[in-house]
Amino acid sequence: MVDADTTPPAGAAPASTDPTVGGAERVIFFSDAVVAIAITLLALDLHVPEQLSNGGFWRDLSHNYQDYLGFVISFLVIGNHWLAHHRLYGLVSRATPALVRWNLLWLLMIVLTPFATRVIVADGAFASRFTVYALTQAIAALSFMLAIWEIHRRGLAREGTAPGVFRHAYLGSATVFAAFMISIPVAFATHWAYAVWA
Amino acid sequence: MVDADTTPPAGAAPASTDPTVGGAERVIFFSDAVVAIAITLLALDLHVPEQLSNGGFWRDLSHNYQDYLGFVISFLVIGNHWLAHHRLYGLVSRATPALVRWNLLWLLMIVLTPFATRVIVADGAFASRFTVYALTQAIAALSFMLAIWEIHRRGLAREGTAPGVFRHAYLGSATVFAAFMISIPVAFATHWAYAVWA
Amino acid sequence: MVDADTTPPAGAAPASTDPTVGGAERVIFFSDAVVAIAITLLALDLHVPEQLSNGGFWRDLSHNYQDYLGFVISFLVIGNHWLAHHRLYGLVSRATPALVRWNLLWLLMIVLTPFATRVIVADGAFASRFTVYALTQAIAALSFMLAIWEIHRRGLAREGTAPGVFRHAYLGSATVFAAFMISIPVAFATHWAYAVWA
Amino acid sequence: MVDADTTPPAGAAPASTDPTVGGAERVIFFSDAVVAIAITLLALDLHVPEQLSNGGFWRDLSHNYQDYLGFVISFLVIGNHWLAHHRLYGLVSRATPALVRWNLLWLLMIVLTPFATRVIVADGAFASRFTVYALTQAIAALSFMLAIWEIHRRGLAREGTAPGVFRHAYLGSATVFAAFMISIPVAFATHWAYAVWA
Repeated sequence: MVDADTTPPAGAAPASTDPTVGGAERVIFFSDAVVAIAITLLALDLHVPEQLSNGGFWRDLSHNYQDYLGFVISFLVIGNHWLAHHRLYGLVSRATPALVRWNLLWLLMIVLTPFATRVIVADGAFASRFTVYALTQAIAALSFMLAIWEIHRRGLAREGTAPGVFRHAYLGSATVFAAFMISIPVAFATHWAYAVWA
Repeated sequence: MVDADTTPPAGAAPASTDPTVGGAERVIFFSDAVVAIAITLLALDLHVPEQLSNGGFWRDLSHNYQDYLGFVISFLVIGNHWLAHHRLYGLVSRATPALVRWNLLWLLMIVLTPFATRVIVADGAFASRFTVYALTQAIAALSFMLAIWEIHRRGLAREGTAPGVFRHAYLGSATVFAAFMISIPVAFATHWAYAVWA
Repeated sequence: MVDADTTPPAGAAPASTDPTVGGAERVIFFSDAVVAIAITLLALDLHVPEQLSNGGFWRDLSHNYQDYLGFVISFLVIGNHWLAHHRLYGLVSRATPALVRWNLLWLLMIVLTPFATRVIVADGAFASRFTVYALTQAIAALSFMLAIWEIHRRGLAREGTAPGVFRHAYLGSATVFAAFMISIPVAFATHWAYAVWA
Repeated sequence: MVDADTTPPAGAAPASTDPTVGGAERVIFFSDAVVAIAITLLALDLHVPEQLSNGGFWRDLSHNYQDYLGFVISFLVIGNHWLAHHRLYGLVSRATPALVRWNLLWLLMIVLTPFATRVIVADGAFASRFTVYALTQAIAALSFMLAIWEIHRRGLAREGTAPGVFRHAYLGSATVFAAFMISIPVAFATHWAYAVWA
């Protein structure tokens, strides 16, 4: 990790005059740790059926299907966020204070995702619960877009990275952002707002 | 970590046309973090005896032996999963999207193992509780087999890795998968289904 | 990581006679993991509204605004601590036992920050709750100052690091320390003690 | 991380015939993550005073002094374990299956330390609670001794490591092991068994 810092990529300005805060490894590492914890904590409160008969056990399990569904959805959602992060930051060699800040905002939304999931799978007030969840995901997408923009603008990518990669990632995040924002008013009209996400 | 990416293994196609999503380090790191958290969270709910006398303390401790047994079993089970992961991924130099996905499915089962343990050590409905636990482990073994298959098929291993290593790992996982699947119908007939695992 | 250890920075004394306990990477890594966990655990106890109507949902949410505010404040506070740590330790190449110890004291305060936040957002006894929180932050700043002092005194920084960097970081931490210490007596006079932090 | 594996230390046998399971980095990393989580989870259940007056707040805080004391003790105990681990494994370049296993046993005791602390700070049954805690620490010391023995016996250290280092670490762990084992019978006679630890 240290070596990567002391040997700046060819063409980079000397560390002392550069607006970067060093190599991107520690930012990536810290993000990975936060995502790993958030994804593991999801399973912490899963309901354990206390029924003594086999029939009662499966009835209890299916009665609480919302909990289990919420867990799997959140695991997939956070897993997908991590995949996108993995793909993008694999191309980044340096970090600026602004990139670190957008990444922290993204992490805040990741950390909130298990909470937002507990909110959305609870009973009643569908549109409101849906809004909390959709807002979390929309802000995650927005902060990711801002990170891509910063990487592109400041040239933080490794040498030889095709600029098309960023355009592609940017469009992907913008689509996710738009889908979640549009789904919010739809949720106040119909429970089929989930369809907007697909 | 970054350096490993910029110096692709000899013979690898250039990064832009390659189906890999980069070096395997970050996948390994993320997996380690998730496993470390899952294994540590196991001890979170261990019952603390509240008895005031020394005799009462040990009676309370032995009365809740299922909790402690479940903790030790899960620690060993997750520890063994990690050992197998450690051995396999130590040979992997690149990751494809499919490998990342099978690894995520494997992680989902690791994250579920503390929950499955809480399910199996609770009272009653033995066959059902046993089924939940055995299914978790069987799917973990299956996703591990699919990861081995992907590594082998796409040639993601480091140069000089003996192909026998993968056959060996594959057979090991297939045996675990078969043992857990067979143990499920056995559990509906007898409590000795545990014996199938041995 | 291993390579960085075996290739000491130019000018460093041989490892066997050196008062350092090795490279700084593992200290940085361990700190990152602790901070990542502390920041993720913040969201664990966030209150999920159980209201069935949309109106009740938002009333419940705003009624518990202290919880959510406390979460966001703690996330920002720990995030800022991490940013300062990231900036400082990015310049450090070796660790001494004393540096490791001041870093552990700093980590103790980070680990206590979610607890201190739960204390400060609860109702009543404002000055006392404020004192617990401010003391945590003041000790964090103090231990950070002691770490900077150790790095400077023992020459643990990478070659070519401008000494002004440490003076700047030291002054920053000293200011934070002073602000939190001063805010404590102020809190016993007025609820506006928060203003001292700004 | 990968690079360190592909460039085995001078004099090491080729990877395929070697009894090692690869470089020690991933074992170190996994251990760091587990220790970081265990140390952070300590603060999870700290009692938040609910008193509304300043006087009541401090009375509540001092009434629960055992909780806070237990937290600080466990933080120091786990912190010290980590320091010893940091010092020892900084010298290790390769891992054998046996080393990985002793390290897992050590990690099991680390993961149990927050639980053992909750046991020892609770009221009553002093000797029994003391025994649970002392056993956890004694087994941690024992597994650490076995790891040192394996490193020494198999020559897993980096080249140029003075053998005196291992003798020193071994004696240190043996002393801790003996102190905790001796303190157990003492605890059944007097509450001053803590003195044996000093």
